[in-house]
Amino acid sequence: MSLTNASPEQAARAAKVSSRKLAALPTAARNAALDAVHDALAGARADILAANSRDVEFAKQSAASGELSLSILKRLDLSRKGKFDDMLQGIRDVRALEDPVGRVDLRTELDDGLILQRQTCPIGVLLIIFEARPEVIANIASLAIKSANAAILKGGKESTESFKIISTIISKALANTDVPNDSIQLVTTRDAVDPLLELSEYIDLVIPRGSNELVRHCQRKAHMPVLGHADGLCSIYIHADADEDMAVNVVVDSKTDYPAACNAVETLLVHENVLKTVLPKVASALISKGVALRCDQASRAALSKHLPQDRALLLHDVSDADFSTEFLDLVLAIRTITPDGNKPTSAVDAAIEHINTHGSHHTDAIITASKEVADRFCNGVDSACKFWNCSTRFCDGMRFGFGTEVGISTNKVHARGPVGLEGLMIHEYRLSGMGQGAAMYGSGGRQYKHKKLPLL
Amino acid sequence: MSLTNASPEQAARAAKVSSRKLAALPTAARNAALDAVHDALAGARADILAANSRDVEFAKQSAASGELSLSILKRLDLSRKGKFDDMLQGIRDVRALEDPVGRVDLRTELDDGLILQRQTCPIGVLLIIFEARPEVIANIASLAIKSANAAILKGGKESTESFKIISTIISKALANTDVPNDSIQLVTTRDAVDPLLELSEYIDLVIPRGSNELVRHCQRKAHMPVLGHADGLCSIYIHADADEDMAVNVVVDSKTDYPAACNAVETLLVHENVLKTVLPKVASALISKGVALRCDQASRAALSKHLPQDRALLLHDVSDADFSTEFLDLVLAIRTITPDGNKPTSAVDAAIEHINTHGSHHTDAIITASKEVADRFCNGVDSACKFWNCSTRFCDGMRFGFGTEVGISTNKVHARGPVGLEGLMIHEYRLSGMGQGAAMYGSGGRQYKHKKLPLL
Repeated sequence: MSLTNASPEQAARAAKVSSRKLAALPTAARNAALDAVHDALAGARADILAANSRDVEFAKQSAASGELSLSILKRLDLSRKGKFDDMLQGIRDVRALEDPVGRVDLRTELDDGLILQRQTCPIGVLLIIFEARPEVIANIASLAIKSANAAILKGGKESTESFKIISTIISKALANTDVPNDSIQLVTTRDAVDPLLELSEYIDLVIPRGSNELVRHCQRKAHMPVLGHADGLCSIYIHADADEDMAVNVVVDSKTDYPAACNAVETLLVHENVLKTVLPKVASALISKGVALRCDQASRAALSKHLPQDRALLLHDVSDADFSTEFLDLVLAIRTITPDGNKPTSAVDAAIEHINTHGSHHTDAIITASKEVADRFCNGVDSACKFWNCSTRFCDGMRFGFGTEVGISTNKVHARGPVGLEGLMIHEYRLSGMGQGAAMYGSGGRQYKHKKLPLL
Repeated sequence: MSLTNASPEQAARAAKVSSRKLAALPTAARNAALDAVHDALAGARADILAANSRDVEFAKQSAASGELSLSILKRLDLSRKGKFDDMLQGIRDVRALEDPVGRVDLRTELDDGLILQRQTCPIGVLLIIFEARPEVIANIASLAIKSANAAILKGGKESTESFKIISTIISKALANTDVPNDSIQLVTTRDAVDPLLELSEYIDLVIPRGSNELVRHCQRKAHMPVLGHADGLCSIYIHADADEDMAVNVVVDSKTDYPAACNAVETLLVHENVLKTVLPKVASALISKGVALRCDQASRAALSKHLPQDRALLLHDVSDADFSTEFLDLVLAIRTITPDGNKPTSAVDAAIEHINTHGSHHTDAIITASKEVADRFCNGVDSACKFWNCSTRFCDGMRFGFGTEVGISTNKVHARGPVGLEGLMIHEYRLSGMGQGAAMYGSGGRQYKHKKLPLL
């Protein structure tokens, strides 16, 4: 691992060459490197937090002058409760996972002595670009090492101090392991992003971690595939039969647990039958937590009647644009769902249509007592994650049990939803024979057996 | 299915809307549609071949005047031995495959009453652009129907007559089935490709089937992922211990079975120890089949001595550019592999380096008696398919037992190698709970169980 001032092309070429060596390292060598990284970071907690506090201090000044959003400030702070420990535990979790390399998932006897095998292998070279979250360096480095992928890490200016110290510590820790020196490249050169995004000869996949703008920039400029999501516009639909307490728990957690996260809820859809029953309880709990509610006409009318006067005064009108906005803050847009005619499914269908039209295909939830309605919702919504009676905040690689995650993907190919180790692998086919040619087969010739064989 | 003069955007939008309905169709409805397509095409064989012969006739004129390559002409001809039957059998094979939709491949109990499930679902809308091979329409339409993906098919001008009749027949056949009318769109508008490649709002994946230029154009212009390969520069390495007959069989089949195919061999690497033993036999057999050999100095010198005079006269000198050329014709570049020093692995390592540098990461083969050498070759070569002692021509979805294929991918994400049904699927996560929020978990709170559950 090297913290270089190498040019983007030098870094990428070096990573590509190292990637073939890294791909051949045995499991034990990669796990030993993860242990070294974990122990080194754990031992340097105080130094890392001190460096991070300098980043946070600087960011606070930028936030005060309006140059930086509060949500970025929140993501930057490694001293937030549990964040450092989560980072360390993430490395341990990844180490504890099964080796994802070389797993055979298909074996077929094409003919006598002609055996096809499909097995997993690393993708090659990953480019990880991140802005504020400094713990991403440790996450990504450990996922890269475990999955035998080389990685180029490019940090943002907001986390410069944290990035420098964490990467120096990781670099020293890896120097005594078998992981090739160039297989994890740390690029600090300014303006390196655009040149890196053109190096499809060396870089196989880009994973941007940061603002919507960063992700969109990568999607627009990259000559190689980009994994991730630009927006996290998640919705919750409260159906007519929703349990009151459940609705309160789920919506409050989805909105307030970490409003700056991509899996926080931004739009609440409410069946008209529960505007006066469930919604006031939900709204009251949200207002208590400081959430600003932006309501459509029907929901505002109902809440104005059924909330105490002082709370009703805090309501706002929603605009059309609010339903396409990722607030990343304590703001929630509310829309009433009115069934169209007598068709029993028309309310859930209207919610599905709203979500497919305005949402970002990330995570959407329904609160209903009916499995049938929940299934219809899940079948109809075109999103990576469909949740029934639980918080959108569960959309997360660690919570899903993947160890840690490289990000959450709304892509329709390769990996979708929280992406852990599996998303960093691709497969290869190996065929072994005894001199066979394809001309032997077909009409009048030999026939393929295509006999499924047990996986070894 | 509609053969429209709709604008690219109208076609794409209609396909997107239909894709959600198609995704909800049961297996039986999709299989019934495949039966209808198969029977209709089988019943119209004479008419289709007559239309195709008009395309071939026109292409012959273009080829004679140099406007069209001979390889495209070969791909166009549906009357080639077995091609029509292969097309029909491909539909039956796809129909016989297990339904790829809704397969649960992960179930985890995150906590009491909080169950995570991952299941397969269709990608959405595919854009298939093809040039010469008219049978691709039937292949792709059947794979799309089976996998519950909507598809937009854009044919090339070389196959206009074949495309029109096949698509009209498929369209009529589908009219009596449950497959929504717009879920397979046939675009005949000229110059529709570039506008379609920008419609990432409606189209999820592009699959170009045709010339390297077409694929490169799509890779450069598309705003959505592109599945496939531009080049098929396959190599075979003959190691020092290679069996003579095996080398002859494998190389001759790889080069001559169908030289216009992407999985035909273009470069032959030969260990210097067998230049005078194995290579002359291989060269003689190739020359008998009309293959022009372009040799480096050492191989030309050896062959000049060990081939009959009249054959030796047919040898050519190879240029550096030849090692980066996909000939798609009866031409083969030959390079001698000279071990560097005494390291026993240096010859196979030199072959690996040549292939990783000059090849297209498609399919590469080794001929050796040693499993150890073969494993080293397979671990070192960075290609989708690595073959040992068999023809590169086996790289094919039908031969691999996938039914038929949408193409062969050299991508490092999503799908690599021959792509069948699996490559047309993505997954979604479903989580069901009892009102849980994420704030309940973590330090001082509840711990996740992450208990692996049996797949239902």
